Amino acid sequence: MDVRALVFDVFGTVVDWRGGVAREVRRLLGPAVDAEALADDWRGRYVPSMQRVRSGDLPWTPLDALHRASLDDVLADAGRADVGPDVREELVLAWHRLDAWPDVLPGLTRLRRSFVLAPLSNGNVALQVDLARRSGLPWDCVLGAEVVRHYKPDPEVYDSAAQLLAVPPSSVVMVAAHVDDLAAARARGLRTAYVHRPAEFGGRVVPPSADPDADWSVDSVEELADRLGA
Amino acid sequence: MDVRALVFDVFGTVVDWRGGVAREVRRLLGPAVDAEALADDWRGRYVPSMQRVRSGDLPWTPLDALHRASLDDVLADAGRADVGPDVREELVLAWHRLDAWPDVLPGLTRLRRSFVLAPLSNGNVALQVDLARRSGLPWDCVLGAEVVRHYKPDPEVYDSAAQLLAVPPSSVVMVAAHVDDLAAARARGLRTAYVHRPAEFGGRVVPPSADPDADWSVDSVEELADRLGA
Repeated sequence: MDVRALVFDVFGTVVDWRGGVAREVRRLLGPAVDAEALADDWRGRYVPSMQRVRSGDLPWTPLDALHRASLDDVLADAGRADVGPDVREELVLAWHRLDAWPDVLPGLTRLRRSFVLAPLSNGNVALQVDLARRSGLPWDCVLGAEVVRHYKPDPEVYDSAAQLLAVPPSSVVMVAAHVDDLAAARARGLRTAYVHRPAEFGGRVVPPSADPDADWSVDSVEELADRLGA
Repeated sequence: MDVRALVFDVFGTVVDWRGGVAREVRRLLGPAVDAEALADDWRGRYVPSMQRVRSGDLPWTPLDALHRASLDDVLADAGRADVGPDVREELVLAWHRLDAWPDVLPGLTRLRRSFVLAPLSNGNVALQVDLARRSGLPWDCVLGAEVVRHYKPDPEVYDSAAQLLAVPPSSVVMVAAHVDDLAAARARGLRTAYVHRPAEFGGRVVPPSADPDADWSVDSVEELADRLGA
């Protein structure tokens, strides 16, 4: 199997969005807010907001702007319509300040010796740059939704990974903690690796321990490096 | 002056295309070919080949494919129509195997502590990834022609740098050894830094020692780091 590149889902797979957003919510809104519930609510509006772009209802809109728009509803529903515009802008940047799961940096560092690595996320380029700088993620480039102006699971996103890296789709491994992302990648000819992230949703939802349709199912990026001989 | 990001022209500014292409030509075609003359001839067809895309005469075509097409003419004119297709493919990869000028890695390493860094080149993404891995260039992401499907000096390329990095154009510095690239960037509101590269054309053409219209004119990326306090 001629693996040349690994492309990664980021929110949930590489970084802990729930813990990071909740931390920033506490910092900016104080202890009276249920920060985890707010993070969950905000994240719950993620797929519907992208769906409006995917369906053509909205023109191309980067994720930061979708987060900014959905935040107004989140705060209204949390009884915090009083939060001012500057704090709202700062809250959007919570998504740029998420920490990587502990296995990510050692795993990527090993994988990068043998493979080209890139995020293939719905997060915009500036957000990916901020996350990478925060955690020292050794990406070779930033691929994903904003580069191709389509949101996953649109096929254009997966196709763009192989095209821009100039390798066959079967040489690219999509790495994700979400079976739907992997299924969409597989439909475009990419290999797939499932990473089990039981803490992504704080225990509210427990993801499956493995994806039977994936080429690899692992519990960490370090285990993926083991399995790929990196 | 609020500088947030530096984006770099690559061929000539970051890497020595002439020396690298000539080295690969010698390796693949042997000593009977004038390798530097072949490199110069190939490079001479670069702007006209991109112009066919810029004018709409050709659909979007990545630089590797333009290099592959112009190589046929280069070899025919050099009396080497005998060169087989596998060697031609390998010759195209010469442009992925160029070495950085000696000041580049130390300069970028310093600049990266304070600024976001990215190539903004007409070379395709896979080519930039190969160059970065070869020389250890610490880019935060890969921007440029292929991401936006326009060749410099089309304004879309310069505009995309600020848009994708989510900063104002005036916070982005275009760094190049070519005054026309800098003039086009300046017309889109970017700051500009000129790097004097007297060896780019092997002494055939001597570029000006400074660009009076640039915000900075320097002799190396290290000097640029000095000037920006990095």
